[in-house]
Formats: sequence, structure tokens, C-alpha cells
Amino acid sequence: MFTLPQKESGAPTTCLDPASTQGLGSNYGDGLGRDCARKPDQKLPKLYGVGDPIATFSSDSSHLSSRGRIIKWFWDSAEEGYRTYHMDEYDEDKNPNGIINLGTSENKLCFDLLCRRLSQNDMLQVEPSLLQYPDWRGHLFLREEVARFLSFYCKSPAPLNPENVVVLNGCASLFSALATVLCEVGEAFLIPAPYYGAITQHVYLYGNIRLVCVYLDSEVTDLDSHPFQLTVEKLEMALQGANSEGVKVKGLILINPQNPLGDIYSPEELQEYLEFAKRHELHVMVDEVYMLSVFEEFVGYRSVLSLERLPDPQRTHVMWAASKDFGMSGLRFGTLYTENRDVATAVASLCRYHGLSGLVQYQMAQLLRDHDWISQVYLPENHARLKAAHTYVSGELRDLGIPFLSRGAGFFIWVDLRKYLPEATFEEEMLLWRRFLDNKVLLSFGKAFECKEPGWFRLVFSDKAHRLHLGMQRVRRVLEGKSQMAEVPPSCQTQESRGQHS
Amino acid sequence: MFTLPQKESGAPTTCLDPASTQGLGSNYGDGLGRDCARKPDQKLPKLYGVGDPIATFSSDSSHLSSRGRIIKWFWDSAEEGYRTYHMDEYDEDKNPNGIINLGTSENKLCFDLLCRRLSQNDMLQVEPSLLQYPDWRGHLFLREEVARFLSFYCKSPAPLNPENVVVLNGCASLFSALATVLCEVGEAFLIPAPYYGAITQHVYLYGNIRLVCVYLDSEVTDLDSHPFQLTVEKLEMALQGANSEGVKVKGLILINPQNPLGDIYSPEELQEYLEFAKRHELHVMVDEVYMLSVFEEFVGYRSVLSLERLPDPQRTHVMWAASKDFGMSGLRFGTLYTENRDVATAVASLCRYHGLSGLVQYQMAQLLRDHDWISQVYLPENHARLKAAHTYVSGELRDLGIPFLSRGAGFFIWVDLRKYLPEATFEEEMLLWRRFLDNKVLLSFGKAFECKEPGWFRLVFSDKAHRLHLGMQRVRRVLEGKSQMAEVPPSCQTQESRGQHS
Repeated sequence: MFTLPQKESGAPTTCLDPASTQGLGSNYGDGLGRDCARKPDQKLPKLYGVGDPIATFSSDSSHLSSRGRIIKWFWDSAEEGYRTYHMDEYDEDKNPNGIINLGTSENKLCFDLLCRRLSQNDMLQVEPSLLQYPDWRGHLFLREEVARFLSFYCKSPAPLNPENVVVLNGCASLFSALATVLCEVGEAFLIPAPYYGAITQHVYLYGNIRLVCVYLDSEVTDLDSHPFQLTVEKLEMALQGANSEGVKVKGLILINPQNPLGDIYSPEELQEYLEFAKRHELHVMVDEVYMLSVFEEFVGYRSVLSLERLPDPQRTHVMWAASKDFGMSGLRFGTLYTENRDVATAVASLCRYHGLSGLVQYQMAQLLRDHDWISQVYLPENHARLKAAHTYVSGELRDLGIPFLSRGAGFFIWVDLRKYLPEATFEEEMLLWRRFLDNKVLLSFGKAFECKEPGWFRLVFSDKAHRLHLGMQRVRRVLEGKSQMAEVPPSCQTQESRGQHS
Repeated sequence: MFTLPQKESGAPTTCLDPASTQGLGSNYGDGLGRDCARKPDQKLPKLYGVGDPIATFSSDSSHLSSRGRIIKWFWDSAEEGYRTYHMDEYDEDKNPNGIINLGTSENKLCFDLLCRRLSQNDMLQVEPSLLQYPDWRGHLFLREEVARFLSFYCKSPAPLNPENVVVLNGCASLFSALATVLCEVGEAFLIPAPYYGAITQHVYLYGNIRLVCVYLDSEVTDLDSHPFQLTVEKLEMALQGANSEGVKVKGLILINPQNPLGDIYSPEELQEYLEFAKRHELHVMVDEVYMLSVFEEFVGYRSVLSLERLPDPQRTHVMWAASKDFGMSGLRFGTLYTENRDVATAVASLCRYHGLSGLVQYQMAQLLRDHDWISQVYLPENHARLKAAHTYVSGELRDLGIPFLSRGAGFFIWVDLRKYLPEATFEEEMLLWRRFLDNKVLLSFGKAFECKEPGWFRLVFSDKAHRLHLGMQRVRRVLEGKSQMAEVPPSCQTQESRGQHS
């Protein structure tokens, strides 16, 4: 039931045990340029272009430690998806037959607004204090702006305190730091699955902690109000299961709005999950990186910081970043808000490894304090563009008769392509993914999010119309041709698809 | 002989064992704002303002893991030095009686040049590719500039290759990443001591690896040509000692120009150390962050990258950053150069936690490509100012009859204050350090660099004349008053100095 890597790979070869790498993946087909990985699949060692994992891990020529080899493996394993993409990126003029990326969760709709704002005169401030060693928590002027920004946009009942803010170079780093300061090696966090798969690496590579999946189902049963519903019962079951296997669970990760589901937790649900965590003395990390990317007005999103009372404020840690809501994953800005000063201090102590430039701290402060621009220019336009793109893609999917989930938040639609798999296996899911890639459109497959049902894909729609149109044409081409291909035995498909690539 | 932390603190209380925290310090009195730490000294638990380490590590109220408590302890332990300083920083107008910082190794002499250059129009470039997820090794345009810059300023025999460059947010991160990808938990690097103490944390906090000191002596013996001379014999002895204690040594750290000694290794010495490492299959990390801060022309500095032939290129990893040579510790830019692609890739894989903003990558590329400004404006002026400041401070020290070491490189002078200690103990060294602080001048004491002889201090001279004058006046006041104070029993001194502070 639980996908857990082994506690620590004593010898490199232990990594070859599927149990050890299982759960160590995988953000394959998802964001981060090269920030993606896949599992070496024992059954299909040559199929996915990962190379021979035995050779990778057993080679001594690398001069790497065993953990170094695992860390490198995460990089190498991104090869087929992102490396293929980066070698053949679509460009309207220079490479019109290149790959369209509907896999990386980036918002490419508002670069015009952002470039204009960030190029203004108030953005380039160079002064000695910005060039000297900073307070590793972040410059006070920035922490003050973050506190004001979160107070306003999260609608906190009382002003948030800059002393509870720690600033660093992105939420990947924050996951790494929190895992390390909250857990011993080998302990675990609960996470509802499907989830943003890169978190597995973020808590493992430095922190050596593991994720215990709370698997959600697409089928709606009595207790659920909608597909992939998270309930306290499921949390309790997963926790008990982990305990019974001797895994010490120290926290719960909640992503709200959820990635890849696009779900939004109601205040009542949030409260229930937080109460569950309190009962079991679990930390809760609430990842709200999409909180301002709720583009449908009827969706009543509520930040955890808006709740009147947190059940366990000393164990509740909120994460936000500029990567999604301001479409600037390359700016490397993330922030922690926690009332637990010990946690804030311990994370700050690690921030000497996660620091961001004083010049960028100044720019972020300028941006965050410009509520006029954010509220009157950026957010309305961003939401309108997200909505238009979403309307187009969801219309195309409906036209194709494809079921999907999407609730008006985030950059992606969770697409049910199960009927296109000849068999309900992850091998078939991978074959379909590869067919998309061969047809020059990159999606993310459900296994990369630890979805337990093969056949789900995440499709990112936050891109310019001409790329979306072309991408959806290619998706359509694959799916409409699929019925013919389904007759061909899988082995032949494999040969064919490899042939097309090499 | 070897200062080693315990392998892993299973229970928090094991940290109270001096053996476990010994060697985990300490950058006390050195750079990094809050990037400094000290050891809890069992004999003087209340003396240094660290608080009660038992309370720190045994408390459960923090909700931190045992490693989280150690990480937090490093932050808290900076309290007396840097927290005192930050609460009472000298300002010519606003706080003329504030503390003068001659402890942090920053170059404050050229902010005018830097601010002017960094404020030019070519520096603020905002374009979509800089706002999107980057190649985690660093944008190619920056790696190309780094390779060109290092080829030129390190005088490499052949052009360096951008594919061997990895860019990240500072050398602290690079130490952390290298320790992790090269070593298993509990393994060690050799390092000649005294050394820049923060490295202890950099390799330990995430990487859990330890430093084995190669202790150097101030006394010149037959084999040595100068005080604190590093020889292959000493390296061999330290390595054998570690082996005999069951400690697996995986690498050697060389800092060149050396911090805090200001030493420069000749090409012949470098070659010898590299051959030693090759014989024992050790990685060598060569930290050259002061390579352009050699301000005396007669000093024939040679980068390791200038050598015709590296004995073991697959195990030689060069580090450089903008923090010292461009006086921009707050910009957070560091780089690795290694011919070992596996190491480069593994470090790059960790760079998702050490990434720097695309906007800063652009700025750094602009700066590094501007050889005209660097060679004709910045470096000559910087060196002239460093030299003038050095001349002033060394003159003051001579005037006081104080022996010191300094070879025309770096920002600091290694000062021999042994004659001012009533007894040759680190307690007395600390008391003298505290007397400086009470007299509003912050220095770094030798213990923070793992110097084995009590009484050495590092004095940073790369500051504006008026602050240097005032700082040296205060140093003089302490040292000239010291002969009177030396009669007072230590316990009274302690009470007095604590009283002054609280």
C-alpha cells in the first residue's frame, strides 16, 4: 500500500531493489526543466531511455558516493522526457515541428505584464546593504512586505508577523529544509496522492525522509462527494498502515489548490484535516503556491491563514512562492510562514544554502508591495487569460469525449485517458505518453504523481493560444489514431516508438 | 588529535557530549551575518551567552528533530557575537559608539564601483526565458561567461569548457552539495587548520560529513619554510591518524589564498598536495574565492586551473564565487569547475535547492564578460584600496609591537596576541575576544578557525579608513589596558564583562 524507499542505501546495489527506488520518483513530465525523474522499472529496463540502472549504480568510475549516485540518477532519469523536449523545443519561427510542452506547470500567459513591471525603474536598486551578507531569514524589508502581502491576499483575521516569515529560493528548498529539521532520517510525511511528484525528491535528496501516500480514488463512494476526495478516514487508514509497517510519520503535506487535481479544500475540510493532524501530533505543511491562480470566481478558495483558529499553530507551516502565482519559476522566491519560532529559526539556519540575492529580495519587495498593480492589473488579466485558455482546452476535451477534472484553479486539467489504454497498466500509460511525445506534445502521466489508477494525465493549459491549438491538435491526432494502434501488440509498439526517436 | 563530531546524534542528549559538538563549530566572529557559531564549552557553560545547551537539545517543545535542534543550535550559538553586533552596529552618524566589525570577511572598499557598474542600463534585463525554470546547472549563457572568465583570470593553459561549469547560490551551498555527492554519512574531508570555520557546518548540516584537521604550527621547524606551513608530511600524518581511528577520509579541502592565514601555495606546493591526494585517491576541493584579491604584485599567485597538468583531474574540483573578489557576498553567486561530469551532474541535481534567479544570472554574465571594467577599473582600484588599508593596519600592529602574518592576499591579517593571554588557554582567548567586543570592536578568535594555539586572531582590514581607524583605536585601547586587567582573576572579569552587556 505504501510506496517507500528503503531507509538508506548502504550499498549502491540496494538501489536496484524495486522497493528502494519505488516512491523515489518522479516528476516525469512535470515542471522544473530538468527537475523531473522516473523510476527504473524492472520489467521494462530498456524501454524508457533511462539507461541501465545497474550500470548507473554499480559503476565506480563516477567517484560518487552511493547517495551521490542516487542524486545523479534523478538527473539522468529525466532524460527521455525533458532532455528530448529541450533538444527539440517548439518555436513558432525556428522550430515549428518542435515539441509543445503541456507538461511543465508554468504560466506562460503573462510574461508581457511581468516583463513590463519588472523592467520599471523602481526595480534596479543597488546599495551596499543588498551586496553584503544578509539576515538569512531574508532582509527585514522583504519579510515585512511578505507579511503584509499574505495578510491581505490570504485574508488573515489579524495582521501576520514578519518575525514568522522566512524567505528562501523556492519551495523545493523549503520542502528540503522542513523535512530535515522536522524529521529524523527515514521518517515520513503523509501526502494525498496523486500529488506533485517532485516533492518526493525534495524531502529525500538531502533530508532522507519518505512520503506515505494517502491514495485517492476516482470512483465516488458513499463517503465521498467527488472523485479523488480526501477524507479523514483515508488519512487515518494511511497513518495506521504506516505505523503498522513501523514507519514513523511526522507530518502531513497538503497542497491547496491541489496539484494535479486542481481541487480546493473547503474551510470545513481544511479544519478536519488539521484536527486529524493535531490528534496525531503531526506537522502540517500547507503548500499554497497556486492560491492566487484561482481563476473561477465561484470557487470560494480560502487560505489556511484565513482561518479564525488553527488547531495546532505550532505545527502548521504555510508555504508560498512566486513561481506559480506570478509565473516566475526562474526568479527563485519562496517563503515559509510559521508561528513556530524554533522551526523558523532552524529553517533559517539552513537558508545559508537556500539564500537568494539581495537584489532579488529588493525586487520581490517592490512587486509584493504594489497592491495596485497586483489587484488591478495583474490578477484580473491573469485570471481572464487562464480562464480563456481553460475554456478552450476543456472544450476540446469535451469535443473528444474525454472525461476530466478541473475546478477553476491552477494551470492544469486532470484528464482521464483510461479508455485509451488497451490494458489498465502503467506500461500502457507510459506507451501512450511516449506516443504523445513522438507526436511532439509533452504531457505528464499519472504515475509521475503516484496516481494508483493507470491512464490519468495532467495537461497544462496556461500557455499561448497558438501553442495550445497546436498541442491539442497533436493530442487529438494521437487519441484518434489510438484506436487503430491498440490492436498492435505492445512489444511492436515499443520497437516502433523507439525507432521513431533514435 | 582530530576534532570530529559523532557520526549521528541518535538522541538529542548525545550532543551534550563534548566529542559530538567538538568540531561542529564554528565561524564565530567570521562573516555571514548570522553564519557563525561556537561550541558549547562544558567548562564555561554560562560564560559565552550560548544559553544552556542541555535545555536547547533536550527540549521537546520545539517540535524539531534531533538534527533540527543541532541546526537551530548553530543559529542560536551565533548570539553573542553577531547578534550583539547587529543590535549595535556602528554608524558614523546614527551610532558612532556602535560596534566596529573587523570580524566579517567582507570587502567594503569598493561598493561605489560596484553600485555604479551594477546600476548601469545593461544590468536589468527581463525576458521570459529568465523567468522560467532554468537549466539547474545554470543558464548556458552564464556558464559560457564563467568558463571564459576563469580561463582568462586563472590563466588556464587551454580554454575551459562551459560543460564543466555548475553555477549556484554561493560556495556554502557548493560545500554542502559536494560533501553529499562525494561522501557517505560520517565520512570525512581533510583540511589544514586554521581554516575558515564555517566549512564545518557547510559539510555537516545537510551532508553529515566531518572534517579532519591537519594542524599547522606557528613555530618554524627544519621542514617548514614559514609559520603554519602545510607539508605533505603533515597531510600524511593526519590521514594516517584518521584511518587509525576508523574514519574514512574521502577528500582534501585546500583554500588558496588561504583563509585565515593569507597564505598562497606555490605551484610546486600545490602540485605536491595534489599528488598526495592522488596517491590516496582523495578528491581535492580547491576553494579559490580570494584568487583576485591578491593585492601585492610580488605575490605570484597561481590558480590550480593554471597548472599544465592536474595529477587527478577527475577528482579535482575548483570553487570560485563573487562574494570576496567582487565584494558581493549578498549577491549569492558561486561556481564549480570540474572535469568530472558525474560530479557536475550530481551537484547540478542538488542545484534545485541552490538555484539563483535568472535575473541575477543575467547580471553576473554581464559583469563577468566586462573584462575592460574588471581589468582596468575594478581590480586596479580594488587592489590599491586593499593595499592602502593593509598598510595602515599592519603599521598600527607594528607600532603596537604585535607579530602578525600576512602575505598580500585576502582581506585579513592573522594576528598573534598570545602575549596578551595570562595563560595559553582558549578560555583566555575568549576573554580577550570578549574584551574587544565590550570595547565595541568585533574580531574573530583563532578557535573559530580550529587553530590549536590559543591567542591568534583574524583581523579584517578591508573596510573604510574611518572605521578602520576607530576600530584600531579600540583594539589598541584593549591591548594597552590589558596589562592592568591581566591581574584581575578571570571570574571577576567575566562578571564585569557580562555586566557591561546586559
